[in-house]
Amino acid sequence: MGFLDKLRAAVTSRDSLLCVGLDPDVDRLPEGLPRGPDGVLRFNREIIAVTQDLACAYKPNLAFYEALGREGYDVLRESIRAIPGDLISLGDAKRADISTTSRMYARALFDQLGFDAVTVNPYLGGDAIQPFLDYTDRGVFVVCRTSNPGAADLESRLVSTDAGRRPLFEVVACLADGWNAAGNVGLVLGATAPEELARAREIAPTLPFLVPGIGAQAGDLAAAVRASRPHAPALISASRSILYASTGRDFAEMARRAAIDLKAAINRLRHG
Amino acid sequence: MGFLDKLRAAVTSRDSLLCVGLDPDVDRLPEGLPRGPDGVLRFNREIIAVTQDLACAYKPNLAFYEALGREGYDVLRESIRAIPGDLISLGDAKRADISTTSRMYARALFDQLGFDAVTVNPYLGGDAIQPFLDYTDRGVFVVCRTSNPGAADLESRLVSTDAGRRPLFEVVACLADGWNAAGNVGLVLGATAPEELARAREIAPTLPFLVPGIGAQAGDLAAAVRASRPHAPALISASRSILYASTGRDFAEMARRAAIDLKAAINRLRHG
Repeated sequence: MGFLDKLRAAVTSRDSLLCVGLDPDVDRLPEGLPRGPDGVLRFNREIIAVTQDLACAYKPNLAFYEALGREGYDVLRESIRAIPGDLISLGDAKRADISTTSRMYARALFDQLGFDAVTVNPYLGGDAIQPFLDYTDRGVFVVCRTSNPGAADLESRLVSTDAGRRPLFEVVACLADGWNAAGNVGLVLGATAPEELARAREIAPTLPFLVPGIGAQAGDLAAAVRASRPHAPALISASRSILYASTGRDFAEMARRAAIDLKAAINRLRHG
Repeated sequence: MGFLDKLRAAVTSRDSLLCVGLDPDVDRLPEGLPRGPDGVLRFNREIIAVTQDLACAYKPNLAFYEALGREGYDVLRESIRAIPGDLISLGDAKRADISTTSRMYARALFDQLGFDAVTVNPYLGGDAIQPFLDYTDRGVFVVCRTSNPGAADLESRLVSTDAGRRPLFEVVACLADGWNAAGNVGLVLGATAPEELARAREIAPTLPFLVPGIGAQAGDLAAAVRASRPHAPALISASRSILYASTGRDFAEMARRAAIDLKAAINRLRHG
Protein backbone atom coordinates (compact mmCIF):
# COMPACT_ATOMS: atom_id res chain seq x y z
CA MET A 1 0.00 0.00 0.00
CA GLY A 2 1.38 3.40 -0.98
CA PHE A 3 1.66 6.25 1.48
CA LEU A 4 -1.27 8.20 0.07
CA ASP A 5 -3.50 5.12 0.25
CA LYS A 6 -2.56 4.62 3.89
CA LEU A 7 -3.19 8.30 4.62
CA ARG A 8 -6.62 8.25 2.97
CA ALA A 9 -7.55 5.05 4.81
CA ALA A 10 -6.56 6.64 8.13
CA VAL A 11 -8.59 9.76 7.37
CA THR A 12 -11.62 7.62 6.50
CA SER A 13 -11.37 5.21 9.43
CA ARG A 14 -11.22 8.07 11.99
CA ASP A 15 -13.36 10.48 9.93
CA SER A 16 -10.61 12.94 10.85
CA LEU A 17 -7.97 15.27 9.43
CA LEU A 18 -6.47 15.80 12.87
CA CYS A 19 -2.72 15.26 13.25
CA VAL A 20 -1.41 15.44 16.80
CA GLY A 21 2.05 16.98 17.05
CA LEU A 22 4.19 15.16 19.59
CA ASP A 23 6.53 17.99 20.65
CA PRO A 24 6.98 17.20 24.34
CA ASP A 25 8.91 19.90 26.15
CA VAL A 26 10.40 18.37 29.29
CA ASP A 27 9.95 21.71 31.10
CA ARG A 28 6.21 21.72 30.39
CA LEU A 29 5.34 18.18 31.45
CA PRO A 30 2.22 18.07 33.61
CA GLU A 31 2.14 17.56 37.34
CA GLY A 32 2.87 14.02 38.44
CA LEU A 33 5.26 13.06 35.65
CA PRO A 34 9.05 12.90 36.20
CA ARG A 35 10.88 15.72 34.37
CA GLY A 36 13.11 13.55 32.25
CA PRO A 37 13.06 11.07 29.36
CA ASP A 38 10.86 8.57 31.26
CA GLY A 39 8.31 11.27 31.93
CA VAL A 40 8.30 12.30 28.28
CA LEU A 41 7.66 8.74 27.11
CA ARG A 42 4.85 8.24 29.63
CA PHE A 43 3.38 11.56 28.53
CA ASN A 44 3.47 10.61 24.84
CA ARG A 45 1.95 7.20 25.48
CA GLU A 46 -0.91 8.78 27.43
CA ILE A 47 -1.53 11.40 24.75
CA ILE A 48 -1.58 8.73 22.03
CA ALA A 49 -3.82 6.45 24.10
CA VAL A 50 -6.48 9.11 24.63
CA THR A 51 -6.48 10.51 21.08
CA GLN A 52 -6.01 7.48 18.82
CA ASP A 53 -9.71 7.24 17.98
CA LEU A 54 -9.71 10.95 17.05
CA ALA A 55 -6.52 11.49 15.04
CA CYS A 56 -5.43 10.14 11.67
CA ALA A 57 -1.75 10.95 12.22
CA TYR A 58 0.92 11.73 14.83
CA LYS A 59 3.81 14.03 14.12
CA PRO A 60 6.80 13.74 16.47
CA ASN A 61 9.11 16.72 16.01
CA LEU A 62 12.64 15.36 16.21
CA ALA A 63 14.11 18.46 17.86
CA PHE A 64 12.25 17.75 21.09
CA TYR A 65 13.77 14.26 21.32
CA GLU A 66 17.28 15.31 20.30
CA ALA A 67 17.17 17.95 23.05
CA LEU A 68 16.93 15.10 25.58
CA GLY A 69 20.38 13.83 24.62
CA ARG A 70 21.22 10.16 24.26
CA GLU A 71 18.02 8.89 25.88
CA GLY A 72 15.94 10.93 23.45
CA TYR A 73 16.42 8.31 20.75
CA ASP A 74 14.73 5.58 22.77
CA VAL A 75 11.92 7.92 23.77
CA LEU A 76 11.32 8.73 20.11
CA ARG A 77 11.46 5.11 18.97
CA GLU A 78 9.12 3.91 21.71
CA SER A 79 6.74 6.80 21.01
CA ILE A 80 6.59 5.81 17.35
CA ARG A 81 5.87 2.23 18.40
CA ALA A 82 2.93 3.48 20.46
CA ILE A 83 1.25 4.95 17.37
CA PRO A 84 -1.42 2.53 16.04
CA GLY A 85 -0.20 0.79 12.89
CA ASP A 86 -3.14 1.95 10.79
CA LEU A 87 -2.40 5.62 11.51
CA ILE A 88 0.33 7.79 9.98
CA SER A 89 3.60 8.41 11.81
CA LEU A 90 5.11 11.59 10.39
CA GLY A 91 8.64 12.55 11.41
CA ASP A 92 8.91 16.33 11.43
CA ALA A 93 12.63 16.63 10.77
CA LYS A 94 12.93 19.20 7.96
CA ARG A 95 16.16 17.58 6.76
CA ALA A 96 17.98 17.96 3.47
CA ASP A 97 21.61 17.89 2.35
CA ILE A 98 23.58 16.86 -0.73
CA SER A 99 22.39 13.51 -2.02
CA THR A 100 24.98 11.24 -0.39
CA THR A 101 24.03 12.81 2.95
CA SER A 102 20.27 12.88 2.37
CA ARG A 103 20.49 9.16 1.68
CA MET A 104 21.77 8.73 5.25
CA TYR A 105 18.99 10.90 6.67
CA ALA A 106 16.42 8.84 4.75
CA ARG A 107 17.97 5.67 6.15
CA ALA A 108 17.79 7.12 9.68
CA LEU A 109 14.17 8.22 9.39
CA PHE A 110 12.66 5.45 7.27
CA ASP A 111 14.77 2.35 7.96
CA GLN A 112 15.89 2.94 11.53
CA LEU A 113 12.89 4.80 12.94
CA GLY A 114 10.27 3.46 10.55
CA PHE A 115 8.34 6.66 9.90
CA ASP A 116 5.54 6.52 7.31
CA ALA A 117 6.42 10.04 6.19
CA VAL A 118 8.82 12.90 6.90
CA THR A 119 9.17 16.63 6.29
CA VAL A 120 12.09 17.91 4.19
CA ASN A 121 13.55 21.35 3.45
CA PRO A 122 13.64 22.46 -0.22
CA TYR A 123 16.47 25.02 -0.09
CA LEU A 124 19.13 22.68 -1.55
CA GLY A 125 16.92 21.62 -4.47
CA GLY A 126 15.63 18.42 -6.02
CA ASP A 127 18.67 16.17 -5.76
CA ALA A 128 18.70 16.76 -1.99
CA ILE A 129 15.10 15.47 -1.79
CA GLN A 130 15.43 12.56 -4.21
CA PRO A 131 16.92 10.05 -1.71
CA PHE A 132 13.76 10.47 0.40
CA LEU A 133 11.49 10.13 -2.65
CA ASP A 134 13.27 6.89 -3.53
CA TYR A 135 11.39 5.31 -0.63
CA THR A 136 8.32 5.18 -2.84
CA ASP A 137 6.05 3.71 -0.16
CA ARG A 138 6.75 6.62 2.22
CA GLY A 139 5.49 10.20 2.19
CA VAL A 140 7.77 13.21 1.74
CA PHE A 141 6.27 16.57 2.76
CA VAL A 142 8.25 19.46 1.31
CA VAL A 143 8.33 22.61 3.45
CA CYS A 144 6.69 25.28 1.31
CA ARG A 145 5.28 28.22 3.28
CA THR A 146 5.77 28.10 7.03
CA SER A 147 3.72 29.58 9.85
CA ASN A 148 6.43 31.79 11.39
CA PRO A 149 7.14 35.52 10.87
CA GLY A 150 10.48 34.73 9.17
CA ALA A 151 8.56 33.21 6.24
CA ALA A 152 8.76 36.71 4.76
CA ASP A 153 12.58 36.57 4.62
CA LEU A 154 12.79 34.04 1.75
CA GLU A 155 9.56 32.11 1.21
CA SER A 156 7.48 35.13 0.17
CA ARG A 157 10.16 36.84 -1.95
CA LEU A 158 9.24 37.42 -5.55
CA VAL A 159 11.25 35.28 -7.91
CA SER A 160 11.65 35.53 -11.70
CA THR A 161 10.20 32.53 -13.54
CA ASP A 162 9.15 31.73 -17.11
CA ALA A 163 5.60 32.51 -16.01
CA GLY A 164 6.53 35.91 -14.57
CA ARG A 165 7.32 36.93 -11.03
CA ARG A 166 5.92 34.83 -8.23
CA PRO A 167 6.71 34.16 -4.56
CA LEU A 168 9.40 31.61 -3.85
CA PHE A 169 6.98 29.30 -2.05
CA GLU A 170 4.98 29.00 -5.29
CA VAL A 171 8.16 27.94 -7.08
CA VAL A 172 8.63 25.29 -4.39
CA ALA A 173 5.02 24.11 -4.83
CA CYS A 174 5.60 23.76 -8.60
CA LEU A 175 8.91 21.95 -8.12
CA ALA A 176 7.41 19.58 -5.56
CA ASP A 177 4.53 18.81 -7.91
CA GLY A 178 7.14 17.92 -10.52
CA TRP A 179 8.99 15.66 -8.06
CA ASN A 180 5.85 13.57 -7.56
CA ALA A 181 6.63 10.82 -10.09
CA ALA A 182 6.08 8.09 -7.47
CA GLY A 183 2.98 9.74 -5.99
CA ASN A 184 4.55 10.21 -2.55
CA VAL A 185 5.10 13.98 -2.33
CA GLY A 186 3.22 16.39 -0.06
CA LEU A 187 3.56 20.04 0.94
CA VAL A 188 3.84 21.80 4.31
CA LEU A 189 1.84 25.03 4.51
CA GLY A 190 1.21 27.00 7.69
CA ALA A 191 -2.41 27.80 8.55
CA THR A 192 -1.32 31.33 9.50
CA ALA A 193 -1.08 32.19 5.77
CA PRO A 194 -4.53 31.32 4.34
CA GLU A 195 -4.03 33.00 0.95
CA GLU A 196 -0.76 31.20 0.35
CA LEU A 197 -2.41 27.94 1.37
CA ALA A 198 -5.16 28.44 -1.22
CA ARG A 199 -2.61 29.39 -3.87
CA ALA A 200 -0.54 26.26 -3.22
CA ARG A 201 -3.70 24.16 -3.58
CA GLU A 202 -4.28 25.70 -7.03
CA ILE A 203 -0.71 24.89 -8.05
CA ALA A 204 -0.66 21.36 -6.65
CA PRO A 205 -4.22 19.97 -6.70
CA THR A 206 -3.22 16.35 -6.13
CA LEU A 207 -0.66 16.63 -3.31
CA PRO A 208 -1.58 15.96 0.32
CA PHE A 209 -0.86 18.89 2.63
CA LEU A 210 0.46 19.09 6.15
CA VAL A 211 -0.93 22.23 7.79
CA PRO A 212 0.63 23.23 11.12
CA GLY A 213 -0.09 26.49 12.93
CA ILE A 214 -3.52 25.61 14.35
CA GLY A 215 -3.95 26.16 18.08
CA ALA A 216 -1.09 27.99 19.83
CA GLN A 217 -0.10 29.73 16.59
CA ALA A 218 -3.72 30.80 15.93
CA GLY A 219 -3.89 29.79 12.27
CA ASP A 220 -7.01 29.90 10.11
CA LEU A 221 -8.82 26.59 10.58
CA ALA A 222 -11.38 27.22 7.84
CA ALA A 223 -8.63 27.94 5.30
CA ALA A 224 -6.87 24.73 6.31
CA VAL A 225 -10.00 22.66 5.84
CA ARG A 226 -10.80 24.36 2.51
CA ALA A 227 -7.40 23.17 1.25
CA SER A 228 -8.27 19.53 1.91
CA ARG A 229 -9.42 17.22 -0.89
CA PRO A 230 -10.79 13.68 -0.54
CA HIS A 231 -8.00 12.29 -2.72
CA ALA A 232 -5.36 14.66 -1.29
CA PRO A 233 -6.17 15.39 2.36
CA ALA A 234 -4.82 18.31 4.37
CA LEU A 235 -3.52 16.98 7.66
CA ILE A 236 -4.35 19.62 10.24
CA SER A 237 -1.72 19.58 12.93
CA ALA A 238 -1.99 20.89 16.46
CA SER A 239 0.60 20.33 19.17
CA ARG A 240 0.69 22.63 22.17
CA SER A 241 -3.08 23.30 22.32
CA ILE A 242 -3.64 19.56 22.85
CA LEU A 243 -0.49 18.50 24.72
CA TYR A 244 -0.73 21.29 27.30
CA ALA A 245 -4.50 21.63 27.53
CA SER A 246 -3.91 21.15 31.26
CA THR A 247 -0.73 21.18 33.33
CA GLY A 248 -2.43 19.19 36.09
CA ARG A 249 -3.01 15.50 36.70
CA ASP A 250 -6.04 15.69 34.42
CA PHE A 251 -3.78 16.43 31.41
CA ALA A 252 -4.83 13.30 29.48
CA GLU A 253 -8.53 13.94 29.94
CA MET A 254 -8.12 17.60 28.96
CA ALA A 255 -5.95 16.68 25.95
CA ARG A 256 -8.70 14.32 24.82
CA ARG A 257 -11.29 17.06 25.21
CA ALA A 258 -9.15 19.48 23.20
CA ALA A 259 -8.74 16.86 20.47
CA ILE A 260 -12.51 16.12 20.46
CA ASP A 261 -13.25 19.82 20.15
CA LEU A 262 -10.74 20.41 17.37
CA LYS A 263 -11.84 17.34 15.41
CA ALA A 264 -15.46 18.47 15.74
CA ALA A 265 -14.61 22.00 14.59
CA ILE A 266 -12.76 20.58 11.59
CA ASN A 267 -15.62 18.23 10.71
CA ARG A 268 -18.24 20.98 10.97
CA LEU A 269 -16.20 22.80 8.32
CA ARG A 270 -15.67 19.63 6.25
CA HIS A 271 -19.15 18.22 6.30
CA GLY A 272 -20.99 21.55 6.46
CA MET B 1 36.51 33.49 24.09
CA GLY B 2 34.11 33.98 21.20
CA PHE B 3 33.73 31.47 18.40
CA LEU B 4 35.60 33.56 15.83
CA ASP B 5 38.53 34.02 18.24
CA LYS B 6 38.71 30.27 18.77
CA LEU B 7 38.52 29.65 15.03
CA ARG B 8 41.31 32.14 14.27
CA ALA B 9 43.48 30.68 17.05
CA ALA B 10 43.00 27.17 15.61
CA VAL B 11 43.88 28.38 12.11
CA THR B 12 47.02 30.04 13.45
CA SER B 13 48.18 27.21 15.68
CA ARG B 14 47.95 24.63 12.87
CA ASP B 15 48.77 27.12 10.08
CA SER B 16 45.83 25.47 8.36
CA LEU B 17 42.40 26.11 6.87
CA LEU B 18 41.75 22.39 6.56
CA CYS B 19 38.51 21.06 8.02
CA VAL B 20 38.15 17.28 8.02
CA GLY B 21 34.60 16.10 7.41
CA LEU B 22 33.74 13.13 9.59
CA ASP B 23 31.09 11.43 7.41
CA PRO B 24 31.83 7.77 8.11
CA ASP B 25 29.79 5.47 5.91
CA VAL B 26 29.62 2.09 7.62
CA ASP B 27 29.62 0.39 4.20
CA ARG B 28 32.91 2.04 3.28
CA LEU B 29 34.92 1.33 6.41
CA PRO B 30 38.39 0.06 5.62
CA GLU B 31 39.57 -3.50 5.91
CA GLY B 32 40.08 -4.69 9.46
CA LEU B 33 37.39 -2.60 11.13
CA PRO B 34 34.06 -4.10 12.22
CA ARG B 35 31.14 -2.87 10.05
CA GLY B 36 29.10 -1.37 12.84
CA PRO B 37 29.04 1.48 15.36
CA ASP B 38 32.22 0.29 17.11
CA GLY B 39 34.07 0.26 13.82
CA VAL B 40 32.88 3.75 12.99
CA LEU B 41 34.10 5.12 16.31
CA ARG B 42 37.49 3.42 15.96
CA PHE B 43 37.70 4.80 12.43
CA ASN B 44 36.92 8.36 13.54
CA ARG B 45 39.40 8.20 16.43
CA GLU B 46 42.13 7.02 14.07
CA ILE B 47 41.33 9.72 11.52
CA ILE B 48 41.39 12.42 14.21
CA ALA B 49 44.60 11.05 15.74
CA VAL B 50 46.52 11.17 12.47
CA THR B 51 45.24 14.58 11.28
CA GLN B 52 45.02 16.70 14.42
CA ASP B 53 48.30 18.47 13.75
CA LEU B 54 47.10 19.30 10.21
CA ALA B 55 43.46 20.39 10.61
CA CYS B 56 41.94 23.40 12.37
CA ALA B 57 38.45 21.89 12.49
CA TYR B 58 36.44 18.67 12.30
CA LYS B 59 32.97 18.54 10.84
CA PRO B 60 30.87 15.50 11.78
CA ASN B 61 27.83 15.29 9.52
CA LEU B 62 24.95 14.20 11.72
CA ALA B 63 23.19 12.16 9.03
CA PHE B 64 25.94 9.53 9.08
CA TYR B 65 25.49 9.00 12.83
CA GLU B 66 21.69 9.05 12.77
CA ALA B 67 21.80 6.37 10.05
CA LEU B 68 23.43 4.05 12.63
CA GLY B 69 20.30 4.10 14.78
CA ARG B 70 20.38 4.31 18.56
CA GLU B 71 24.11 3.60 18.89
CA GLY B 72 24.88 6.45 16.52
CA TYR B 73 24.43 8.99 19.29
CA ASP B 74 27.23 7.54 21.39
CA VAL B 75 29.50 7.25 18.37
CA LEU B 76 28.91 10.93 17.61
CA ARG B 77 29.40 12.07 21.19
CA GLU B 78 32.61 10.05 21.60
CA SER B 79 33.89 11.28 18.24
CA ILE B 80 33.34 14.89 19.34
CA ARG B 81 35.22 14.12 22.55
CA ALA B 82 38.15 12.87 20.50
CA ILE B 83 38.54 16.26 18.79
CA PRO B 84 41.31 18.28 20.52
CA GLY B 85 39.82 21.05 22.66
CA ASP B 86 41.72 23.83 20.90
CA LEU B 87 40.26 22.85 17.50
CA ILE B 88 36.77 23.58 16.18
CA SER B 89 34.03 20.95 16.32
CA LEU B 90 31.45 21.85 13.71
CA GLY B 91 28.16 19.94 13.64
CA ASP B 92 26.93 19.75 10.05
CA ALA B 93 23.22 19.42 10.75
CA LYS B 94 21.54 22.01 8.48
CA ARG B 95 18.67 22.35 10.93
CA ALA B 96 16.01 25.05 11.18
CA ASP B 97 12.36 25.19 12.23
CA ILE B 98 10.01 27.67 13.89
CA SER B 99 11.66 29.32 16.88
CA THR B 100 10.27 27.10 19.66
CA THR B 101 11.60 24.10 17.74
CA SER B 102 14.93 25.63 16.73
CA ARG B 103 15.51 26.32 20.41
CA MET B 104 15.36 22.54 20.98
CA TYR B 105 17.74 21.86 18.10
CA ALA B 106 20.17 24.42 19.53
CA ARG B 107 19.92 22.74 22.93
CA ALA B 108 20.61 19.34 21.31
CA LEU B 109 23.63 20.54 19.34
CA PHE B 110 25.22 23.03 21.72
CA ASP B 111 24.23 21.89 25.22
CA GLN B 112 23.93 18.13 24.77
CA LEU B 113 26.62 17.51 22.14
CA GLY B 114 28.79 20.54 22.88
CA PHE B 115 29.59 21.60 19.32
CA ASP B 116 31.55 24.83 18.86
CA ALA B 117 29.53 25.60 15.74
CA VAL B 118 26.74 24.23 13.55
CA THR B 119 25.30 24.65 10.08
CA VAL B 120 21.70 25.89 9.69
CA ASN B 121 19.24 26.14 6.78
CA PRO B 122 17.94 29.64 5.90
CA TYR B 123 14.66 28.73 4.15
CA LEU B 124 12.43 29.50 7.16
CA GLY B 125 14.00 32.91 7.75
CA GLY B 126 15.64 34.82 10.59
CA ASP B 127 13.47 33.82 13.53
CA ALA B 128 14.27 30.16 12.79
CA ILE B 129 17.99 30.93 13.10
CA GLN B 130 17.83 33.24 16.10
CA PRO B 131 17.74 30.50 18.79
CA PHE B 132 21.11 29.28 17.49
CA LEU B 133 22.53 32.82 17.38
CA ASP B 134 21.48 33.27 21.00
CA TYR B 135 24.38 30.99 21.89
CA THR B 136 26.71 33.93 21.35
CA ASP B 137 29.89 31.96 22.05
CA ARG B 138 29.11 29.41 19.31
CA GLY B 139 29.34 29.69 15.54
CA VAL B 140 26.31 29.47 13.24
CA PHE B 141 27.09 28.81 9.56
CA VAL B 142 24.13 29.64 7.35
CA VAL B 143 23.79 27.47 4.23
CA CYS B 144 24.07 29.91 1.33
CA ARG B 145 25.12 28.31 -1.98
CA THR B 146 25.66 24.56 -1.91
CA SER B 147 27.90 22.34 -4.01
CA ASN B 148 25.19 20.10 -5.51
CA PRO B 149 23.43 20.35 -8.91
CA GLY B 150 20.09 21.14 -7.20
CA ALA B 151 21.54 24.49 -6.09
CA ALA B 152 20.05 25.79 -9.35
CA ASP B 153 16.49 24.94 -8.22
CA LEU B 154 16.22 27.69 -5.60
CA GLU B 155 19.58 29.10 -4.54
CA SER B 156 20.47 30.58 -7.93
CA ARG B 157 16.98 31.88 -8.80
CA LEU B 158 16.76 35.59 -9.42
CA VAL B 159 14.84 37.42 -6.73
CA SER B 160 13.43 40.95 -6.69
CA THR B 161 15.10 43.17 -4.09
CA ASP B 162 15.36 46.91 -3.41
CA ALA B 163 18.74 46.75 -5.12
CA GLY B 164 17.36 45.04 -8.24
CA ARG B 165 17.28 41.38 -9.20
CA ARG B 166 19.84 39.09 -7.64
CA PRO B 167 20.22 35.37 -6.98
CA LEU B 168 18.55 34.04 -3.85
CA PHE B 169 21.89 33.00 -2.32
CA GLU B 170 22.98 36.64 -2.39
CA VAL B 171 19.84 37.56 -0.48
CA VAL B 172 20.80 34.91 2.07
CA ALA B 173 24.34 36.30 2.32
CA CYS B 174 22.92 39.79 2.98
CA LEU B 175 20.44 38.52 5.55
CA ALA B 176 23.12 36.48 7.33
CA ASP B 177 25.39 39.52 7.46
CA GLY B 178 22.51 41.37 9.11
CA TRP B 179 22.01 38.57 11.65
CA ASN B 180 25.61 38.95 12.84
CA ALA B 181 24.94 41.24 15.83
CA ALA B 182 26.85 38.91 18.19
CA GLY B 183 29.69 38.25 15.74
CA ASN B 184 28.98 34.52 15.51
CA VAL B 185 27.55 34.08 12.00
CA GLY B 186 29.27 32.32 9.09
CA LEU B 187 28.26 31.19 5.60
CA VAL B 188 28.40 27.83 3.81
CA LEU B 189 29.47 28.08 0.17
CA GLY B 190 30.36 25.14 -2.04
CA ALA B 191 33.73 25.23 -3.78
CA THR B 192 32.06 23.96 -6.96
CA ALA B 193 30.65 27.47 -7.55
CA PRO B 194 33.72 29.77 -7.53
CA GLU B 195 31.95 32.88 -8.87
CA GLU B 196 29.21 32.65 -6.26
CA LEU B 197 31.86 32.16 -3.59
CA ALA B 198 33.61 35.36 -4.65
CA ARG B 199 30.31 37.24 -4.80
CA ALA B 200 29.37 36.13 -1.27
CA ARG B 201 32.76 37.36 -0.05
CA GLU B 202 32.03 40.81 -1.51
CA ILE B 203 28.65 40.87 0.24
CA ALA B 204 29.88 39.59 3.60
CA PRO B 205 33.53 40.59 4.02
CA THR B 206 33.69 39.86 7.76
CA LEU B 207 31.96 36.47 8.01
CA PRO B 208 33.93 33.22 8.25
CA PHE B 209 33.09 30.74 5.50
CA LEU B 210 32.72 26.98 5.47
CA VAL B 211 33.62 25.70 2.02
CA PRO B 212 32.75 22.06 1.29
CA GLY B 213 33.04 20.42 -2.12
CA ILE B 214 36.82 19.96 -2.23
CA GLY B 215 38.04 16.46 -3.04
CA ALA B 216 35.36 14.00 -4.16
CA GLN B 217 33.15 16.84 -5.44
CA ALA B 218 36.09 18.39 -7.36
CA GLY B 219 35.57 21.99 -6.26
CA ASP B 220 37.88 24.88 -7.08
CA LEU B 221 40.55 24.97 -4.36
CA ALA B 222 42.05 28.28 -5.49
CA ALA B 223 38.65 29.98 -5.36
CA ALA B 224 38.10 28.62 -1.86
CA VAL B 225 41.46 29.94 -0.64
CA ARG B 226 40.89 33.32 -2.33
CA ALA B 227 37.71 33.68 -0.24
CA SER B 228 39.64 33.34 3.02
CA ARG B 229 40.59 36.41 5.09
CA PRO B 230 42.88 36.50 8.12
CA HIS B 231 40.09 37.91 10.30
CA ALA B 232 37.38 35.79 8.60
CA PRO B 233 38.87 32.46 7.52
CA ALA B 234 37.38 30.11 4.96
CA LEU B 235 37.36 26.62 6.43
CA ILE B 236 38.10 24.29 3.54
CA SER B 237 36.36 21.01 4.13
CA ALA B 238 37.17 17.64 2.62
CA SER B 239 35.60 14.36 3.70
CA ARG B 240 35.68 11.38 1.36
CA SER B 241 39.05 12.21 -0.25
CA ILE B 242 40.69 11.93 3.18
CA LEU B 243 38.52 9.32 4.94
CA TYR B 244 38.68 6.86 2.07
CA ALA B 245 42.17 7.58 0.74
CA SER B 246 42.71 3.86 1.19
CA THR B 247 40.27 1.04 1.86
CA GLY B 248 43.07 -1.14 3.22
CA ARG B 249 44.72 -1.51 6.59
CA ASP B 250 46.92 1.48 5.76
CA PHE B 251 43.85 3.77 5.78
CA ALA B 252 45.13 5.98 8.62
CA GLU B 253 48.53 6.48 7.03
CA MET B 254 46.94 7.23 3.66
CA ALA B 255 44.39 9.60 5.23
CA ARG B 256 47.27 11.45 6.87
CA ARG B 257 49.08 11.69 3.54
CA ALA B 258 45.94 13.02 1.83
CA ALA B 259 45.54 15.61 4.61
CA ILE B 260 49.22 16.62 4.35
CA ASP B 261 48.88 17.03 0.59
CA LEU B 262 45.68 19.05 0.81
CA LYS B 263 47.01 21.28 3.59
CA ALA B 264 50.15 21.89 1.55
CA ALA B 265 48.14 22.70 -1.59
CA ILE B 266 46.02 25.16 0.40
CA ASN B 267 49.06 26.80 1.98
CA ARG B 268 50.85 27.17 -1.37
CA LEU B 269 47.79 29.16 -2.49
CA ARG B 270 47.58 31.07 0.82
CA HIS B 271 51.21 31.96 1.29
CA GLY B 272 52.14 32.20 -2.40
